[in-house]
Amino acid sequence: MGSQHTEAGTSDEANLPTNWGRWGEDDQRGTLNLITDEARARAAAEVRTGRAVSLALPIQPTPVISGPFAPATQAASPVQQLLQYTGCPPLATAEVLIVTNHHPRSTHLDALAHMPRAGRVYPGRPLDECVTVAGVRHGSTAAFSAGVATRGVLLDLAADGPLPSGYAVTSEDFDAAEERENVRLEAGDALVVRCGWAMTPDADRPMPGMTLDAVQWMHRRGVSLYAGDIGDAHPALDPACPAPLHGVALPLLGLPLIDAVETGELSAACAELGRYAFLLTVAPPRIDGLTGVPVNPLALF
Amino acid sequence: MGSQHTEAGTSDEANLPTNWGRWGEDDQRGTLNLITDEARARAAAEVRTGRAVSLALPIQPTPVISGPFAPATQAASPVQQLLQYTGCPPLATAEVLIVTNHHPRSTHLDALAHMPRAGRVYPGRPLDECVTVAGVRHGSTAAFSAGVATRGVLLDLAADGPLPSGYAVTSEDFDAAEERENVRLEAGDALVVRCGWAMTPDADRPMPGMTLDAVQWMHRRGVSLYAGDIGDAHPALDPACPAPLHGVALPLLGLPLIDAVETGELSAACAELGRYAFLLTVAPPRIDGLTGVPVNPLALF
Amino acid sequence: MGSQHTEAGTSDEANLPTNWGRWGEDDQRGTLNLITDEARARAAAEVRTGRAVSLALPIQPTPVISGPFAPATQAASPVQQLLQYTGCPPLATAEVLIVTNHHPRSTHLDALAHMPRAGRVYPGRPLDECVTVAGVRHGSTAAFSAGVATRGVLLDLAADGPLPSGYAVTSEDFDAAEERENVRLEAGDALVVRCGWAMTPDADRPMPGMTLDAVQWMHRRGVSLYAGDIGDAHPALDPACPAPLHGVALPLLGLPLIDAVETGELSAACAELGRYAFLLTVAPPRIDGLTGVPVNPLALF
Amino acid sequence: MGSQHTEAGTSDEANLPTNWGRWGEDDQRGTLNLITDEARARAAAEVRTGRAVSLALPIQPTPVISGPFAPATQAASPVQQLLQYTGCPPLATAEVLIVTNHHPRSTHLDALAHMPRAGRVYPGRPLDECVTVAGVRHGSTAAFSAGVATRGVLLDLAADGPLPSGYAVTSEDFDAAEERENVRLEAGDALVVRCGWAMTPDADRPMPGMTLDAVQWMHRRGVSLYAGDIGDAHPALDPACPAPLHGVALPLLGLPLIDAVETGELSAACAELGRYAFLLTVAPPRIDGLTGVPVNPLALF
Repeated sequence: MGSQHTEAGTSDEANLPTNWGRWGEDDQRGTLNLITDEARARAAAEVRTGRAVSLALPIQPTPVISGPFAPATQAASPVQQLLQYTGCPPLATAEVLIVTNHHPRSTHLDALAHMPRAGRVYPGRPLDECVTVAGVRHGSTAAFSAGVATRGVLLDLAADGPLPSGYAVTSEDFDAAEERENVRLEAGDALVVRCGWAMTPDADRPMPGMTLDAVQWMHRRGVSLYAGDIGDAHPALDPACPAPLHGVALPLLGLPLIDAVETGELSAACAELGRYAFLLTVAPPRIDGLTGVPVNPLALF
Repeated sequence: MGSQHTEAGTSDEANLPTNWGRWGEDDQRGTLNLITDEARARAAAEVRTGRAVSLALPIQPTPVISGPFAPATQAASPVQQLLQYTGCPPLATAEVLIVTNHHPRSTHLDALAHMPRAGRVYPGRPLDECVTVAGVRHGSTAAFSAGVATRGVLLDLAADGPLPSGYAVTSEDFDAAEERENVRLEAGDALVVRCGWAMTPDADRPMPGMTLDAVQWMHRRGVSLYAGDIGDAHPALDPACPAPLHGVALPLLGLPLIDAVETGELSAACAELGRYAFLLTVAPPRIDGLTGVPVNPLALF
Repeated sequence: MGSQHTEAGTSDEANLPTNWGRWGEDDQRGTLNLITDEARARAAAEVRTGRAVSLALPIQPTPVISGPFAPATQAASPVQQLLQYTGCPPLATAEVLIVTNHHPRSTHLDALAHMPRAGRVYPGRPLDECVTVAGVRHGSTAAFSAGVATRGVLLDLAADGPLPSGYAVTSEDFDAAEERENVRLEAGDALVVRCGWAMTPDADRPMPGMTLDAVQWMHRRGVSLYAGDIGDAHPALDPACPAPLHGVALPLLGLPLIDAVETGELSAACAELGRYAFLLTVAPPRIDGLTGVPVNPLALF
Repeated sequence: MGSQHTEAGTSDEANLPTNWGRWGEDDQRGTLNLITDEARARAAAEVRTGRAVSLALPIQPTPVISGPFAPATQAASPVQQLLQYTGCPPLATAEVLIVTNHHPRSTHLDALAHMPRAGRVYPGRPLDECVTVAGVRHGSTAAFSAGVATRGVLLDLAADGPLPSGYAVTSEDFDAAEERENVRLEAGDALVVRCGWAMTPDADRPMPGMTLDAVQWMHRRGVSLYAGDIGDAHPALDPACPAPLHGVALPLLGLPLIDAVETGELSAACAELGRYAFLLTVAPPRIDGLTGVPVNPLALF
């Protein structure tokens, strides 16, 4: 399924999985194309009680404050809030937000234009045509504009505790989790991965992450969307392929990534219910033309 | 169900429906309390094919541009985008957004603290305790943090075309729509209303809207959430009660409102499928402490 | 010169100095009216060598950063910088700034509308007429739009070291400084005060500040503009008059204030040259309609 | 004075004036180095009456407004204002500004890092070392941090009306203006140019601008700072050298540019006083690390 990426011509590039050209030269949906009616029906079948679990980290916005009481340091939140009374007495209260999209403490969805590879955006279009000063013309969040709903499968690699520091996740881990959980990820499903870590680089404690082998498993299986508490390791596991998710899966497979997913409550719910599949909805604010956007994915049981 | 609001002591206030005190003095969920396990199960039963329809207006962000080519006027979008290449050549592209939450061209969810009544936020707490310079302490978007999933019912008042200019929507319109659509809104359901209008004030063409009678119907029925293409009329239908939704339902009932909902595709889907109930998910970015937040509600069939 | 403020009718208010009505009901310049041709000529006479000294604190902007390297905490700077490459390779580099005007680590000019008194802006106009959601209609930075140039006089109260913690500055301190420096502040001059403190509240070390007596001295002498390293004490010296500068001088006298002035280099220059008067230019970005604005005052010798 | 730029090795590059290396490899002040004590004294001698004239365009900020009354289109102002009441009743009013630095309707100062040439910032340092995601490390507004004061000379090319559309300003125009005004620009002086145009591109009416010959005149004379109502022509006068000011003077000479200067009132004052030299102060907010910054230059007579 899908040819090997050969354009760059180096031996390294030649071994990378790719979907460039698979759905045409102008495709902007990437692996979302795998969500067929059959996949949707499989998702619907998982909804029984209506219980919903959020996969987003709560964000505490930082107030932008004037005056003598402004703090000297503050939390570097993904969101800043500028509160506004609309008069005195106020008819209403309101605010303006300043949102840093690709922030490690914000659960957010990466659009395909977020990560070019060798100056090109999936499926091979020149970066400067895709991302201009006036906006993103190709590979933006417009692909998620109407929302995504498909079956989600949690592969809980941290059922017995967080992965060891620096652990390299491979296809064997996924196979073992499927067997343990008695579930099988089908083409078009979203893959939710729990490693038991937060996406906070710590110089003293290397973060685990996905290997190229893990990404190749996703490619073989037809994963439509990746959502993980963590993703690429810090520091890189393999200098020759420093970021298998952001440097290969996103730009070559066209596989959208949700960074910084909260998986704790989901893991508990799956264990309690004894099932690891659910309907997953991913419906960020419908803002077209972005390279990324905060999102609150919901697992519905 | 629910007493009349008598605290203010005026005859006008005495006739207003209220939930102040119904779920305690510190309640922050308002009518979301009506979403019981039974309501959730009713919602789950509506999911059959996994088809998803977005109820959000697409937003085109406005780029913030420097240089000699900056335009003299621009669209007043709810979202401004500051694109950032992260170097040259860029490792990634990214952006910072400036988001105006309560914007008439943004589908957004109003938190309870958005609209005080007589200086008090639902269920009767002083505004200045609830909304401070440093953030919203009570009645914020924290109530929606984990997402909302319940049954949604579309009452399509524009099945035969947009409502007439200045039309006053009453309980009779809702009763008639239920009969026409062969559906009945139960306690805990979300009410989706389609009037066939956009939330754009036009001085020459008075916008229709909800009456106090319509809000009283919502109260009797146990609506958990209101989502409409429009809501309160402009100009007001009744100067004595200028904004039944934002001035009564939100602050007195604790009924969250979704403004500027896109109902066109939903209406077509309901007509095609011959059913007007669905699972509705409302999962805005999980940012606590706001007075409102953009959202992309999904109807799942 | 100038009557006592009697409008509010309380005994406290009755003793406060005021300029309400002195230059008409619609005046927006306040004590800047005192800068006559004579005052300007006096300022010009101080310019001999063209040496310029900045009275502004340097501001280090905080970058708004995405990606895995975003810090967990950051300096709460008055200015945030969103750097923008304009393509790849970039034709130019640029940025957008987010500026918090009334910030204790930013040398900034307070406009008259910044501080109402009893709901009224100098010279007695209702706040809600002056400051609306759509902008500041009266008492804004428009008064400084064309820049201010007048004679500045440094009264260096910290020539022998910082003032003691909690020190209450009175007219006697000003008189003593004038005698020590062999200078006399004339009507229309700007008063630059050095206390040897930074405008950083420290719970353990009460900040010195101006008394009402010091403000009355400014009123008698005809100070056109106040610029100090600090101004009002924290905590307040006198609970009955907690902020003589921001609560009396600004709203009642119409005396513009420059907060957080850097006076170290100025003090050294004055001591070296043996003179404490100079031409002071105050020319913030020409943005009308603000309640305050960052400024870089220059002393020219 | 200053060698020719030969590094790039092309015949075009070989004829361009340059100051790379003239004040060292790490220099960040460029032609501001020409402002000697002698130049400062010459400036001081021009101050006689203390009259001040602003050279900045007034900026009307655009309010960021929520609610049903948000406009559909708005002026694209360089400054957006987010007004904030600080409670109810408010102790103070304040705001946060969003400032687009390099905006054609904002009088602003370009720092040397704003315009690289062939990937290098004056005096030849690689762009990616100078401008990083975390801030500008070399060639930023830090060079103007303490303010600039020098003699300014207005060469009024529009004394008899605006220059013709598409007019190419050369050294002859400067020589003629000096003779007409009976003034001579000396090394270290700031050059203020009036063409009688606003910096607003108009597709139907080509804007005049400076030629490379005019820039060479500035180089020979030792201009320390350029301030013009307009600068580079739109469209370009010479495709082989499309932007003599922004593409040659700024990156090769290290000559700071003030864009979008208001010269009308200055022209009137000079004509009235019969002299075209004055003390010019340029003191933008003291924000280090920017590529540009709004400024309100003052001419003092």
